[in-house]
Amino acid sequence: MKLPLGYRYAAVYAGIRKDERDDVALIVSDPPAQAAAVFTTNMVQAAPVRQARSNLRSTRGRVAAILVNAGNANCATRTGDRVTLALCKAAAKALKTRKEMILPASTGVIGVELDPKPLLDAIPKLTAALSPSAFESVARAMMTTDTRMKIVSRELQLGKGIIRIAGLTKGAGMIQPNMATTLGFVLTDADVPAKQLREILSRAARRSYHSLTVDGDMSTNDTLALLANGAAGVKPHRDDLQTFSAAVTEVMESLAEQIAADGEGAKKLIVVRVTGFKTEEDARKVGRAIANSPLVKTAIAGSDPNWGRILSAAGYSGISFDPRDIDVYLQNVRVCQRGLAADYDEDQLKSRLDESEVHIRVERQGRGKGQARFFTCDFTEDYIRINGSYRT
Amino acid sequence: MKLPLGYRYAAVYAGIRKDERDDVALIVSDPPAQAAAVFTTNMVQAAPVRQARSNLRSTRGRVAAILVNAGNANCATRTGDRVTLALCKAAAKALKTRKEMILPASTGVIGVELDPKPLLDAIPKLTAALSPSAFESVARAMMTTDTRMKIVSRELQLGKGIIRIAGLTKGAGMIQPNMATTLGFVLTDADVPAKQLREILSRAARRSYHSLTVDGDMSTNDTLALLANGAAGVKPHRDDLQTFSAAVTEVMESLAEQIAADGEGAKKLIVVRVTGFKTEEDARKVGRAIANSPLVKTAIAGSDPNWGRILSAAGYSGISFDPRDIDVYLQNVRVCQRGLAADYDEDQLKSRLDESEVHIRVERQGRGKGQARFFTCDFTEDYIRINGSYRT
Repeated sequence: MKLPLGYRYAAVYAGIRKDERDDVALIVSDPPAQAAAVFTTNMVQAAPVRQARSNLRSTRGRVAAILVNAGNANCATRTGDRVTLALCKAAAKALKTRKEMILPASTGVIGVELDPKPLLDAIPKLTAALSPSAFESVARAMMTTDTRMKIVSRELQLGKGIIRIAGLTKGAGMIQPNMATTLGFVLTDADVPAKQLREILSRAARRSYHSLTVDGDMSTNDTLALLANGAAGVKPHRDDLQTFSAAVTEVMESLAEQIAADGEGAKKLIVVRVTGFKTEEDARKVGRAIANSPLVKTAIAGSDPNWGRILSAAGYSGISFDPRDIDVYLQNVRVCQRGLAADYDEDQLKSRLDESEVHIRVERQGRGKGQARFFTCDFTEDYIRINGSYRT
Repeated sequence: MKLPLGYRYAAVYAGIRKDERDDVALIVSDPPAQAAAVFTTNMVQAAPVRQARSNLRSTRGRVAAILVNAGNANCATRTGDRVTLALCKAAAKALKTRKEMILPASTGVIGVELDPKPLLDAIPKLTAALSPSAFESVARAMMTTDTRMKIVSRELQLGKGIIRIAGLTKGAGMIQPNMATTLGFVLTDADVPAKQLREILSRAARRSYHSLTVDGDMSTNDTLALLANGAAGVKPHRDDLQTFSAAVTEVMESLAEQIAADGEGAKKLIVVRVTGFKTEEDARKVGRAIANSPLVKTAIAGSDPNWGRILSAAGYSGISFDPRDIDVYLQNVRVCQRGLAADYDEDQLKSRLDESEVHIRVERQGRGKGQARFFTCDFTEDYIRINGSYRT
């Protein structure tokens, strides 16, 4: 894995989780990075989200380190703001930077006070353990109900030289467009100013994390950050910026896909593609309704080509259309033509629906150019098992 | 059970279902009734929905009979309109009325052609079997994944005499505000003109069926009709109309509750009450987000007082509020006070969450008068089992 230059990583077990797995991690950028971030739009926001937002504002998009813990969301807690501030201060002191240069993030249960003591004790251990190769240990430390770590990296030849992009993320449930119990960090050694990072992140998020849904729930802690520390000594030209932006989007699409594929209890990744609607926004609404429909997702779990549920979900998306203009494809097999059952071999299709990746395509006939893609997963009994006893 | 005068009922097995249970039913009103109905707002509408709408328009709200089949939704079918029309004609002929006086309704799988032959053959059997006491057999014939029939009746003393109201309904999955795979019929022997029935139905639907969600899915076949045949010889006075309207609302609330309690795989009825928001519409949005949240519903399934998920669902409802104004109650126990964990006995509360009816209350402090109530159910592994193999 080719990692971007100028980043060091560490993860340790502080004692927040019940089981002894690393639960706190640090990513340090040398030199400090330009940064952009998007956060949950939930009215209920965790203390670290508020703090991260305020820190980024006061530094105008500069980040020296990301401090992240799992096992406790530090949300709806009496002491939340104080605890987050203390952690930022301690990390800043250890790293000889200002507290505003720390981007804090938490994930885990809501409404339980987060004891700062074990985390404060862990900070010297973290800084001592920092290493350029411990990338995966951070990805693992962030996991909650995730069954596997989610990472991706890319090397890119630009006009002025080679740059690298790496992404790591967590998230399995409570995931829905406009974010999730998702933490996602994308790191690059290219030299890109914060203002451009914000534009690139916003576009990339729309095509990746904001096109992702597991269960229609949206969390209080979602944080997605893009850091560029310039350690490669390459400042993308205007033409290169588009290449760079496309690569960031690909990285984030890969992360979003990995989250969907690891959706709580999921056996299958579902990719929903919608074309031919008037606008992209219309296509997104249709795609989101399908990707969020428990009936569609349970049908896919059962390898049942029940296209009526797909058509019906499109029908209640709030977007107006004539069902007689709609074709539906499952695994590239047309199952619904002009709103009616198409001819297809049901047994053959059923066995193709057993694959680990299922493609749903809804095509509206006509001249509409609006299209969208959503990532989701099938809905199995394990989702219920996982979520019925999360805290116990 | 005190049933309204002037209605006769019949149900038989026509052969639409695979298992030999009654799958077609007839409700006849003598004399023909004044009627109002609300239908699914899904863009994809079943043929019987289109026909019923058009029939009611052409008769200006008069219905002689309701013809309903289970096992096939007659939706997204090539021959749907023709089949529905043929059925209306045949029923009208047998009952010596006009085809527009028949209200057709279907429920079952989408996208499979409905063979009219067995239904046409069943019509003489239905008319021969008509009886004023076969009410429950119709409620049973409508059932699909329902585990029990859903009926209610009420007798009411008005100024001018006694009237009766009876309701029967079906629905278990694919249920969401603004309707469901729900068929609901409310019959009264009061004498109320169609225009007033429409107002009464609209108000009552808002407080019952439109405040009901099982899985966030909305079907193509939802039909809810209110019939008044005047057979009691009592025309409610202006003052009595309010009493009558309240009774219709109660009947429909009971039906909606019965549907939620029988939600696919559900072990528990969940009643969500939201108070203190600016408007009723705001409170409804908050209530709907909570009632639709798979994370809230799986937590209740596991008797887990995970109020953080309730607060978080309120937070992404789209309604703006300060979490520090929010109290949350579970079974009348305050679990969250001003956005933070309240003191309560978790073990005791856990055992109270094992009850078959769970009450969630979200109170916003302040002077807001907007309130709402939603009916839903817990989300169990059985939901997945039922929906993963519905067609097979």
